[in-house]
Amino acid sequence: MSTPTAPRYAYLGPAGTFTEAALRQVVAPQDAVYLPQPDVVSAIEAVRSGTADFAVVAIESTVEGGVTATLDSLAVGAPLVLLREVLVPVQFTLAAAPGVRLEDVRRIAAHPHAWVQCRRWLSAHLPDVVHVPATSNTAPAALIAARTAVDAPLGFDAALVPPAAVEPYRLTVLAPDIADNAHALTRFVVVGHPGDVPAPTGADKTTLVVHLPDNEAGALLSMLEQFAVRGVNLSRIESRPIGDALGRYSFSIDADGHIAEERVGEAIMGLHRRCPYVRFLGSYPKADGVPPVVHVGTSDSEFVHARVWLRSVREGAAT
Amino acid sequence: MSTPTAPRYAYLGPAGTFTEAALRQVVAPQDAVYLPQPDVVSAIEAVRSGTADFAVVAIESTVEGGVTATLDSLAVGAPLVLLREVLVPVQFTLAAAPGVRLEDVRRIAAHPHAWVQCRRWLSAHLPDVVHVPATSNTAPAALIAARTAVDAPLGFDAALVPPAAVEPYRLTVLAPDIADNAHALTRFVVVGHPGDVPAPTGADKTTLVVHLPDNEAGALLSMLEQFAVRGVNLSRIESRPIGDALGRYSFSIDADGHIAEERVGEAIMGLHRRCPYVRFLGSYPKADGVPPVVHVGTSDSEFVHARVWLRSVREGAAT
Amino acid sequence: MSTPTAPRYAYLGPAGTFTEAALRQVVAPQDAVYLPQPDVVSAIEAVRSGTADFAVVAIESTVEGGVTATLDSLAVGAPLVLLREVLVPVQFTLAAAPGVRLEDVRRIAAHPHAWVQCRRWLSAHLPDVVHVPATSNTAPAALIAARTAVDAPLGFDAALVPPAAVEPYRLTVLAPDIADNAHALTRFVVVGHPGDVPAPTGADKTTLVVHLPDNEAGALLSMLEQFAVRGVNLSRIESRPIGDALGRYSFSIDADGHIAEERVGEAIMGLHRRCPYVRFLGSYPKADGVPPVVHVGTSDSEFVHARVWLRSVREGAAT
Amino acid sequence: MSTPTAPRYAYLGPAGTFTEAALRQVVAPQDAVYLPQPDVVSAIEAVRSGTADFAVVAIESTVEGGVTATLDSLAVGAPLVLLREVLVPVQFTLAAAPGVRLEDVRRIAAHPHAWVQCRRWLSAHLPDVVHVPATSNTAPAALIAARTAVDAPLGFDAALVPPAAVEPYRLTVLAPDIADNAHALTRFVVVGHPGDVPAPTGADKTTLVVHLPDNEAGALLSMLEQFAVRGVNLSRIESRPIGDALGRYSFSIDADGHIAEERVGEAIMGLHRRCPYVRFLGSYPKADGVPPVVHVGTSDSEFVHARVWLRSVREGAAT
Repeated sequence: MSTPTAPRYAYLGPAGTFTEAALRQVVAPQDAVYLPQPDVVSAIEAVRSGTADFAVVAIESTVEGGVTATLDSLAVGAPLVLLREVLVPVQFTLAAAPGVRLEDVRRIAAHPHAWVQCRRWLSAHLPDVVHVPATSNTAPAALIAARTAVDAPLGFDAALVPPAAVEPYRLTVLAPDIADNAHALTRFVVVGHPGDVPAPTGADKTTLVVHLPDNEAGALLSMLEQFAVRGVNLSRIESRPIGDALGRYSFSIDADGHIAEERVGEAIMGLHRRCPYVRFLGSYPKADGVPPVVHVGTSDSEFVHARVWLRSVREGAAT
Repeated sequence: MSTPTAPRYAYLGPAGTFTEAALRQVVAPQDAVYLPQPDVVSAIEAVRSGTADFAVVAIESTVEGGVTATLDSLAVGAPLVLLREVLVPVQFTLAAAPGVRLEDVRRIAAHPHAWVQCRRWLSAHLPDVVHVPATSNTAPAALIAARTAVDAPLGFDAALVPPAAVEPYRLTVLAPDIADNAHALTRFVVVGHPGDVPAPTGADKTTLVVHLPDNEAGALLSMLEQFAVRGVNLSRIESRPIGDALGRYSFSIDADGHIAEERVGEAIMGLHRRCPYVRFLGSYPKADGVPPVVHVGTSDSEFVHARVWLRSVREGAAT
Repeated sequence: MSTPTAPRYAYLGPAGTFTEAALRQVVAPQDAVYLPQPDVVSAIEAVRSGTADFAVVAIESTVEGGVTATLDSLAVGAPLVLLREVLVPVQFTLAAAPGVRLEDVRRIAAHPHAWVQCRRWLSAHLPDVVHVPATSNTAPAALIAARTAVDAPLGFDAALVPPAAVEPYRLTVLAPDIADNAHALTRFVVVGHPGDVPAPTGADKTTLVVHLPDNEAGALLSMLEQFAVRGVNLSRIESRPIGDALGRYSFSIDADGHIAEERVGEAIMGLHRRCPYVRFLGSYPKADGVPPVVHVGTSDSEFVHARVWLRSVREGAAT
Repeated sequence: MSTPTAPRYAYLGPAGTFTEAALRQVVAPQDAVYLPQPDVVSAIEAVRSGTADFAVVAIESTVEGGVTATLDSLAVGAPLVLLREVLVPVQFTLAAAPGVRLEDVRRIAAHPHAWVQCRRWLSAHLPDVVHVPATSNTAPAALIAARTAVDAPLGFDAALVPPAAVEPYRLTVLAPDIADNAHALTRFVVVGHPGDVPAPTGADKTTLVVHLPDNEAGALLSMLEQFAVRGVNLSRIESRPIGDALGRYSFSIDADGHIAEERVGEAIMGLHRRCPYVRFLGSYPKADGVPPVVHVGTSDSEFVHARVWLRSVREGAAT
């Protein structure tokens, strides 16, 4: 049981979601208050409103790419930062209420992302089924569990659910592990209020939102050069529309390294000077723990030596 | 009425959708067979399977960015090309069955994109409503129109619909024009089979899918330089996961200019040589008709002169 | 007369040279000790050895380019810096001892640079004359003035001399102003010991010597990007062999701006980190007084704001 | 003996020069007419005027860098091309007329380049000697050999000469091999009329003269990118003043590869389109025979495949 002072985590619930699996990696249920939310935006807003201390939300998947609701919610509004990332394997099970047989399935409830991730399997095995969209991966499971009679109408015959949802909702498995990509991963982040940035671990990433100064040829190139000239690698870059006109983009970026590191700090200052909008969304340990390649001339000590050298030269020292 | 030989257009139907509005810009109903489809992927697949000759699908909006289902469907699978683009203003009306009052609305059916585009208005005026996801902007309207009794349960009280859907479905307007962004546009494209590329008009764009050679620092920079060094501007660039691992991206790109133009052709050959995957998705007239800026040294005639000059120099001419 | 404490200036003498004209722009003869030297290297070494406080030497001309003896002497050896630059128009007069006629001229004494700068005139008017190389522009004039008899053998019949040398050496003008380029200029610099860098004036230049990290494709490009990404323009870049192998170059660079300026300082730190050798040869006022173009995001105040902003973000401030 | 139809080679003579050593590598005396010239410019002009078929001239040394007279003579005027390069080790001997002792030497005749290359040895061993400039490395040797009496005045006591000049001029060696850099090389080129470009050997270089479109920041960067984006390495780049104003440069460039190669041809076409002046000075075998690194996507076959692919795509082929 969590105590009244336990941290409160908002997440895309209910029990059985991938997000809950991510949350369990972050903090055990007995050490926190789990606050399930109907959608990602609500989870993030729960932190902004003070209802929750933290949110755990999906930010990217190997299959679907950036989670636009997360990216867009973090890019504007009251400032929040990312404090940690966790990776969760993504797999789906076709499940139903007890008694349903695979050959009876005509309508499958599924979150649109789940539907996409099982598309090839469904085309091959159930080419004629209809997609009934669900607001989450577990909503259909909850509907099955909550039905008042065995023959109560559900609006669907089966559902694509996370494997972890089978047992709590007492579902029958019709086909396990049917995701088209057996190695799919979703990356989740812990969102909190700005404050102390987690200390560098040597294998960190930094997330930023950047608007380009104009939409001329070369603006994106110039932005990328701010990183390249300081030897900072980008592990993720996604464009999102700013929303005021076609052709105007905001970029969501993950850079290798920590804002406390010299090369990252100088690159971000370069963005700050040249771009109309830069939002720092946090520096935090990489889930894979792999330290970045530090190119010649871009280590912290080389930056410090260069600064000391420049100061001496400015004061008249010989070179 | 369309004749048996009229071209068949698949699109996200039914009547009243924004896609239908786009399709009407392309071809009048009497000159074509309109084939409504339940989703974008189905519309595209209808062309691949031969059920339709063309598809009209949304590819990008000022609010939501790239339509990932469209981008992903075109990026892989049997080759298709874009033949034309059309722009449609995006606006939403909150509508319901006759007799419903605004103060009675608790559940609003809306396609997720519509929901997002009215988020601020909804927060301000109906902060407690619940989102009931719909598979299209007109599906709830069709459900209202099709209900067998005035009090038949719909699962929602009102819907966000395109203004054009109010009349055909005999809806009552509760609040007109409530999209947060009054200037929102969606860009639609006409998809067809590869074949004759539309002739250059002087104001064209070219759509490409490109995979980077590796995920090292600088691979994206190098790709952009292939365009920059030939003076080709990019009006859209979006990253999509390749799907096999985090950090591996496919880029969907709109370049100013036509593949028949020298600078575009040379840039695309550069991509072809350096990138593991390049798919040409078509060169077609820009909807806004604005010709691109042609920088010094990048016009077709300058390319031709340079080629003639090079040939003469290779053959021993003096310079 | 100069007092014992007057500053001592070494320069390529004797009286009448272009360098003396440059020196007169720097300091009047009554305020300094003029120390004529036989060549540029000797003038520079006079400062190193303590014989002189300063040297005035040519560094670049519109016709001949960089003065390699100056560039090479400054690039290695005990550190010296440039404190000021002055521009001197370059013009030549064909002159001789009294009594000599143009049609008698067979051999012309001239410093090789002078010879080059009058090449077209000489080809047109005296195609058969022979070049007798001189160590300075005034050495032949001095020989004429110093001859003990009117018919004493000189080894040459006439000389290319600066216009200012005609009178002091009592020469006869055979053809005035015969330089091929009427707008030729030579840039001279005042060389001194490292110490207080002249304060920024708003229109300064900074001279550097830089070795590239390797001779791979792109090393020069990377070096130039260190400047470009900070908006620093280069007004001069010259390659000089390092001397150990063909294909290994040292670059002599003039950058717009003062080392005390943020953008210049950051660019130089970038060079210091990436290049095996960087020598600062001074920041000093531009002779033309034209302030550099400061691009958006590269002013000192923008650098300072970015640094303050970064510090606050590193300490947890919201963005 | 050479026959009347033997090719005529102009070179910086007389016998014993380094240039003669280079010429002997190119063609044996019995197979050609050797036409010694007083200077590099005369040798080049001899080809232009038809007096010679070819010229052999120094273009670059490890110590002195580019030979500006050669670079400038080739950059303008009637077009000539480079057909071959040869490398000659550079070494100097301090020699004199028989009977002269080292301790008697006060004045040393030397070509300015020779003087520079022995500077450190001279400073250490003969700090007080005076430099008497010579027009070539062998001119003083010829004067010694030609003197009519043992005590005829020469104007100098000893000379810096190529080792090969000792014997023909019957000199006495005072100090052998005194060049400061024991590994010094000079690169010579064979200059001829434009015509058939030597066929590619797989290890070639291409020499170009290029003017930048303007002197803005980034013009040099843009020029270098024309090479970089096609994977062409530069082994030499030297700036020369255009001569009309300070800050305006012509660049003399050696690029790895042959103009017949695709990547080189495309890069040169890029220069032709963007730069106000491009002169092709030849493609010829590298003296060291080392083939260039060909980066992924820049081989001839990849260029050809890309061109074939582009043509098919322009004609409507699927990708």
